[in-house]
Amino acid sequence: MEDPFVGTVKGVILSINPAVQIVDITHLIPPQDVLQGALVLKASCRFFPPGTIHLAVVDPGVGSSRLPIVIDSPPYIFIGPDNGLFSLVVGRDYRAFLIENPLFMLPQISHTFHGRDIFAPCAGYLSLGVPPSSVGREVKEIVEIELPSPLVKGKEIKGEIISFDHFGNAITNIPGELIPQGEVLIRVGEGVIKGISQSYSEKREGEVLAIIGSLGYLEIAVNRASARHLLHLRKGDAVVLRFT
Amino acid sequence: MEDPFVGTVKGVILSINPAVQIVDITHLIPPQDVLQGALVLKASCRFFPPGTIHLAVVDPGVGSSRLPIVIDSPPYIFIGPDNGLFSLVVGRDYRAFLIENPLFMLPQISHTFHGRDIFAPCAGYLSLGVPPSSVGREVKEIVEIELPSPLVKGKEIKGEIISFDHFGNAITNIPGELIPQGEVLIRVGEGVIKGISQSYSEKREGEVLAIIGSLGYLEIAVNRASARHLLHLRKGDAVVLRFT
Amino acid sequence: MEDPFVGTVKGVILSINPAVQIVDITHLIPPQDVLQGALVLKASCRFFPPGTIHLAVVDPGVGSSRLPIVIDSPPYIFIGPDNGLFSLVVGRDYRAFLIENPLFMLPQISHTFHGRDIFAPCAGYLSLGVPPSSVGREVKEIVEIELPSPLVKGKEIKGEIISFDHFGNAITNIPGELIPQGEVLIRVGEGVIKGISQSYSEKREGEVLAIIGSLGYLEIAVNRASARHLLHLRKGDAVVLRFT
Repeated sequence: MEDPFVGTVKGVILSINPAVQIVDITHLIPPQDVLQGALVLKASCRFFPPGTIHLAVVDPGVGSSRLPIVIDSPPYIFIGPDNGLFSLVVGRDYRAFLIENPLFMLPQISHTFHGRDIFAPCAGYLSLGVPPSSVGREVKEIVEIELPSPLVKGKEIKGEIISFDHFGNAITNIPGELIPQGEVLIRVGEGVIKGISQSYSEKREGEVLAIIGSLGYLEIAVNRASARHLLHLRKGDAVVLRFT
Repeated sequence: MEDPFVGTVKGVILSINPAVQIVDITHLIPPQDVLQGALVLKASCRFFPPGTIHLAVVDPGVGSSRLPIVIDSPPYIFIGPDNGLFSLVVGRDYRAFLIENPLFMLPQISHTFHGRDIFAPCAGYLSLGVPPSSVGREVKEIVEIELPSPLVKGKEIKGEIISFDHFGNAITNIPGELIPQGEVLIRVGEGVIKGISQSYSEKREGEVLAIIGSLGYLEIAVNRASARHLLHLRKGDAVVLRFT
Repeated sequence: MEDPFVGTVKGVILSINPAVQIVDITHLIPPQDVLQGALVLKASCRFFPPGTIHLAVVDPGVGSSRLPIVIDSPPYIFIGPDNGLFSLVVGRDYRAFLIENPLFMLPQISHTFHGRDIFAPCAGYLSLGVPPSSVGREVKEIVEIELPSPLVKGKEIKGEIISFDHFGNAITNIPGELIPQGEVLIRVGEGVIKGISQSYSEKREGEVLAIIGSLGYLEIAVNRASARHLLHLRKGDAVVLRFT
């Protein structure tokens, strides 16, 4: 970032617990894109050690009525705004708590930067062993994010592009497990892809392919290039599988 | 960065003090933009623990006559080029020292990368407890940066946009304390904003607003969008407040 | 990155060795650009402490027949794909090993993300003291990258631009040692530069210059601006030195 926000959050945490290890996942979620944040959390958080505190802030509603929360979802703790950001990662037995105890906040709370004033100090104190239930009263349930579901109908699965990675691969909402073995045609935009590849390099350079990506979802890719740019793909574009 | 500079600086520090904790604030200050660097330092450094060594390099004059300095400004130490980068953060009782002792530099000094050759090793040694005064003779005063002041005249305050954040909010040089309570019209470009909001979400999505931001300055923002892009704002654009 | 890949790799490493210190060099190598990755490694790795494990992944051939390797090249260990990425940094006496022991991988190996499934866990275990030779059988030699050599012919050296840095400086393949003392004209595109500067600020703001950069190679630069954008330079553009 060209601004001081990320560094400031780290400074607040380290001022409370100078021994904590801070690991950056990403600072490039597009502004206000809560769904992209939720997907990145889902893909990465389970690879971290048990006990990790995941602080995540994609917070277009900062200063409004949306709640600041801590979620205790073993083996992890999540901290951030209750706007759906955590709804793809919590387990069934999570407990969520409203952050309302001023002991675990900065003395002055702005209306525009709860990352610094509420979430960072809370993360700092929890990393010192403060139990999640100390931050405030329990919240019954957290806000759920709307993730479009793929439609299965006869010999067709209809999904859509929900995200792109750094390489321009287009990630769909169709999980690999949903796709049966056998011949399949994949229609995306005006093109048709035959079959699902095992690796990018199965196709020639510049050729379009479909693959079950490392996140477990069907992806549209181009070997050694960006499918996003080459095929002019956008979020929401339909991806249809037809089995024969 | 797509280049090795940041990683190299970290490697040099860790070669001297493998136990030090390095925290990235930002690597996205636009090249040569010393003022933006100074503003980011000002906004973030005070949130770090006492004893933090702030290494900052925005250094268009590298290899010229500008001096490499260490500033002892309790509770912090600052290291970098003496070009104004630190003039917004030093306290009244700072002491500044020229880095001239070759003990605390790499054996070979390039004319183009003092971050690696002078500032990083100096930071490494200071983190081991070397006192700032060991690096060289004392410098009377550091270079001051020119920060445009807002003009207050009768019922009007005339300021300007000095920076943008990652979200496209436009930060002005008008500190919140300068703005009296009461009704106010804010003119920016060809638009007029009525009153100062408490939070982004006070306005509807896409609506322009004025707000005292988390840095303490008046900001021009758009709820859930980029004011910078929507209003075609640039650094230096006038922002005028008129009280009634 | 806007995606979860970098964070995931860090999570896997920390799950194996929570005490390891992870340092980011860069995540902005252009996709598939193995040469740029090799150049950045070359420029930065030697500034890190002995014993550093350098994990690098620029891996367009992931899932194909290219091999995952560990290179023991004292004082460093390198881990990544055997595609030339490490050929500019290994010493003469390196030993390379195929990563094939499933003990040092994740239980499930995708065809698209060996950074997470093979390289990260391997790095985690090596950081705990597992010897490189434990990961698999020895590989005779690693893949060499093709780095275009400059041509020296009479009073002329003909090289080319191989890389750009964050500031837009154009880095050539002409090492500083190759350039004799004395008067020289440097032709790049349609322009001619007289002599080699010692620092950027030797020239006026906006003026083009040639300089031996911090990486040891001849660079084409513009004082306080981007040579890349101002001169419309591209990788592969010829840079010719003529001595008089």
